[in-house]
Amino acid sequence: MTETAVMTPAPLRPSKKREQILQSARGVFLDHGYEGASMDAIAAEAQVSKATVYAHFADKQALFAEMVAEYCREQQAALAEIEAEHPRVQEGLERLARVMMRYLAAPNALRFGRMIVGESARFPELGRTFVDSGFLALQADIAGFLGRAAERGELDLPDPALAAELFVSMVRGPVQFRSLRALGAPPDDTALDRIASEAARLLVTAYARK
Amino acid sequence: MTETAVMTPAPLRPSKKREQILQSARGVFLDHGYEGASMDAIAAEAQVSKATVYAHFADKQALFAEMVAEYCREQQAALAEIEAEHPRVQEGLERLARVMMRYLAAPNALRFGRMIVGESARFPELGRTFVDSGFLALQADIAGFLGRAAERGELDLPDPALAAELFVSMVRGPVQFRSLRALGAPPDDTALDRIASEAARLLVTAYARK
Repeated sequence: MTETAVMTPAPLRPSKKREQILQSARGVFLDHGYEGASMDAIAAEAQVSKATVYAHFADKQALFAEMVAEYCREQQAALAEIEAEHPRVQEGLERLARVMMRYLAAPNALRFGRMIVGESARFPELGRTFVDSGFLALQADIAGFLGRAAERGELDLPDPALAAELFVSMVRGPVQFRSLRALGAPPDDTALDRIASEAARLLVTAYARK
Repeated sequence: MTETAVMTPAPLRPSKKREQILQSARGVFLDHGYEGASMDAIAAEAQVSKATVYAHFADKQALFAEMVAEYCREQQAALAEIEAEHPRVQEGLERLARVMMRYLAAPNALRFGRMIVGESARFPELGRTFVDSGFLALQADIAGFLGRAAERGELDLPDPALAAELFVSMVRGPVQFRSLRALGAPPDDTALDRIASEAARLLVTAYARK
């Protein structure tokens, strides 16, 4: 097979195969970690040839990056929906915080986070890929959401990126520390919902238009 | 040796030996992880007998808990000093945020955090011990600090624990995600200082007395 053929996505329903590979990659990375996951295992799990995997993704790091991006795109899509449904910024932020907290507290998200943090010492590019492909993309969308609220006159926001980072931190921190302490028990949704409301209120109060 | 003798600290400068064991434990846990760290290795590193280690700490988990508590006591002591030096709550919080960020961004703290998160899947009690012995103790002290500011009339604070949790999250999140992305480079202190100021401002603005 020529290199061109390998690098060009298969013509027959390429997006379905791509989706299949990404789904399988998620499982293989979760079960075997970043180091332990092989392109062979991912191909076998997706029931495609290794050449097909490489037709869609240049290497393991690229596949990992795309898988993280997919995962964050789900949250980004949720944000777009929330913005359409909640015209007031505080309600939108509160709703977003609740949605994000549920994503973060899902068992697979916790396992995934543990894998990334645990392996990032040996594979520093893993942490960078995770942050750049996922985390920062979502944070930029939140900054955009806040910026539009400022344009509508709801907020006085000198630095939307900084505000977004503080908001994301208030959403992530409580889930992370509860999960670390939980010994596998599901988090207390009532407590998290209260934190979600308070995080939204803090942000909107601090950036209220004077 | 009777069990009583084993459980009673050695009479000769017990606090110095205890300190030695804790220092050695820090290094052994960092180098070998929780699973890989043995009481034998810690005794050898501290140049004491294994019986002396057990005279001070019942088992590996207890030693680990005490080591985490020690580490957090340093930050708790810094908080007490800050409270004495900075009578206004916003200045105190800003100073505290800077101090905590520097603790969190230190290479050993990052390695330690990675070890705990990475191993907590196999050793759930590790995460719980870390949170209870360290994290929650510091958070409770911050809640106390905020509560005293409320008593002085500086804040209107219905729930000091919730406010403390949001503050700690705003301090930790930015260090965590920068460290994960940094590929070993030291964090940008100017950026972190700006986040520290903004986190303190957010909290004080949201809980300002009306």
